Amino acid sequence: MKNIYFTVGPSQIYPTIKDHTFRALKKDIFSLNHRSKQFEELYQSIDTRLKELLSIPSDYSIFLLSSGTEAMERVIQNTVEGKSFHIVTGTFGDRFYKTSQELGKSAQAHVYDPLTLFKAKDITIPSDAELIALTHNDTSTGMQIPAKEIYEIQAKNPHALIALDAVSSMPYMDIMYDKVDCVFFSVQKGFGMPAGLGILIVSPRAMKKAKQLQEKGVSIGSYHSFLSLEKSTSKFQTPDTPNVFGIYLLANVLQDFLGKGIDVIRKETEIKAKMLYDFFESSDIFTPLIQDTAHQSKTTIVAQVKGGSTKLTKMLEKKGYRIGSGYGERKDQDIRIANFPAHRIEDIKGLIRCIEELVA
Amino acid sequence: MKNIYFTVGPSQIYPTIKDHTFRALKKDIFSLNHRSKQFEELYQSIDTRLKELLSIPSDYSIFLLSSGTEAMERVIQNTVEGKSFHIVTGTFGDRFYKTSQELGKSAQAHVYDPLTLFKAKDITIPSDAELIALTHNDTSTGMQIPAKEIYEIQAKNPHALIALDAVSSMPYMDIMYDKVDCVFFSVQKGFGMPAGLGILIVSPRAMKKAKQLQEKGVSIGSYHSFLSLEKSTSKFQTPDTPNVFGIYLLANVLQDFLGKGIDVIRKETEIKAKMLYDFFESSDIFTPLIQDTAHQSKTTIVAQVKGGSTKLTKMLEKKGYRIGSGYGERKDQDIRIANFPAHRIEDIKGLIRCIEELVA
Repeated sequence: MKNIYFTVGPSQIYPTIKDHTFRALKKDIFSLNHRSKQFEELYQSIDTRLKELLSIPSDYSIFLLSSGTEAMERVIQNTVEGKSFHIVTGTFGDRFYKTSQELGKSAQAHVYDPLTLFKAKDITIPSDAELIALTHNDTSTGMQIPAKEIYEIQAKNPHALIALDAVSSMPYMDIMYDKVDCVFFSVQKGFGMPAGLGILIVSPRAMKKAKQLQEKGVSIGSYHSFLSLEKSTSKFQTPDTPNVFGIYLLANVLQDFLGKGIDVIRKETEIKAKMLYDFFESSDIFTPLIQDTAHQSKTTIVAQVKGGSTKLTKMLEKKGYRIGSGYGERKDQDIRIANFPAHRIEDIKGLIRCIEELVA
Repeated sequence: MKNIYFTVGPSQIYPTIKDHTFRALKKDIFSLNHRSKQFEELYQSIDTRLKELLSIPSDYSIFLLSSGTEAMERVIQNTVEGKSFHIVTGTFGDRFYKTSQELGKSAQAHVYDPLTLFKAKDITIPSDAELIALTHNDTSTGMQIPAKEIYEIQAKNPHALIALDAVSSMPYMDIMYDKVDCVFFSVQKGFGMPAGLGILIVSPRAMKKAKQLQEKGVSIGSYHSFLSLEKSTSKFQTPDTPNVFGIYLLANVLQDFLGKGIDVIRKETEIKAKMLYDFFESSDIFTPLIQDTAHQSKTTIVAQVKGGSTKLTKMLEKKGYRIGSGYGERKDQDIRIANFPAHRIEDIKGLIRCIEELVA
């Protein structure tokens, strides 16, 4: 039986991934030297294509890391001397907050009740916060922060850098990059790739901060400090031996995405999300966990299930539909469905039909 | 034309890798959740198989990182409060030394002239060094430190922890693990895998040191601190989303290695190394860079080429044999040939024959 993975990550692979893998084997990509011209061309094409796809300014840096979690560590090390401020809407915001504490910084947090909608005006940020960290899309609740709330925070705190965890909302997330400084994501979600690669987008302002910290004698890390990364990236190399196969896949998936067009990808994401939300809203059994449309995630759809979700999740698995259970304490109450570019409209239709049959 | 990669890493892939990749695609490994039972079983099998293959004590921890370079950073963060001591025999020893400096430690080094043979008795190590770092096999010169020299250093400095970079000598390296504390390698060399995974083996003594540092309020890092790794590893999970495909391949390659037997792998490595050294020694054109047999690397064979190496390297490439040029300033003087389990005896014979024809 062929499975379709609606898990929130690792998730369904993008339809072209298998062919790219076969081509990688043919082209000896598993043996490709990371100091070769061919590797540099791959990295350069990622830089060019990602900037084109997401309208990232050309003077921003694109760094290749190993995970979104690593990105949190590198962001804190390179942008915070004293104080970071964290808007915690779920587990990953909390992970970011703890990372800062573990690295010996003075971290402060505004912890949201998971189901409270995000409003910039509710949050008081101390004027000495050097970094404000947010999670764009929370996969535990399916709450997504509207871009205008992020802009409002940025406008009110012009001296702070803004770090945005976009792990589960890229490439859908549409943001003006001149208003944010460190944006990161990993490839096993919206890019439909195997896990093992994290991408960190860094503004010139954040680069400058890293340089200032180093000049002051603050440790900004070693091989993956922003300055070490930048030195290698200027030649389209990496300081360490990276996941070359992942980098090859990413270069190719980006080309596929450009071929399709970001507008089409975003539009399809919204159409598929609406299909799921409409279905849940019309049902007596399901209730979307987040009610406000502006805050409803388009990439992670979470719904409460009357009578519990465990039985349904297991029955769907038998039919080849792998969906996520609820997060943490809500494990047996909710279902969570990823909606990434790898999920076709007919996959969503099939999933809805299957749920309808099972709960009928 | 089929290429054979004798580059020192990334290098030739192990003969089973392609089939493991096809099976991975069939089994949806690219979509495998890193919090699933199936993932835990993979990690557990790596733990069991690696310990069996290399005779690692059962109370040592096996951590999954992203590269050997990352391992250097984690080792320094978790075992050094004040002073580390580095025996620098080449570029990677220097990278380890710089890592400690960059992380704000007081790092001291004994820097060898690259072609001086390693002798433990020549090195004076300060009594307050908390960590002694060595590179087992130096890929720039082809110099390998004999195990007895490492034991001598350990015996003379019983209070220090020993960190051993075994990136380019595993699984060939045969060491008594109770005499070393942090041993690391990456998979794109001796394990014949695509790059993107680093393995760190940690002794209970080093774990204890990390705990002491944390209790003293020294930052030991965040998600990849020894304590955070240990907490996840106790459930055979990882703190972050790792390179799941790499982990799948490693579990399978370890099984292949166990099937073959470590004694056979080591014996074959020595036979192939001897073939290359004998050939170079019998030739008027080549001279092994390291003359002393006990210090000659068995996994990276480096030879000076009379009249320069560039032309030969390029001619070999045209015949499908990819070998390494000399390292750094010796780029045009030497050739470097990797000798890993993926390289069959007939591959080495073919390479030697081809070189003979080209220089005839």
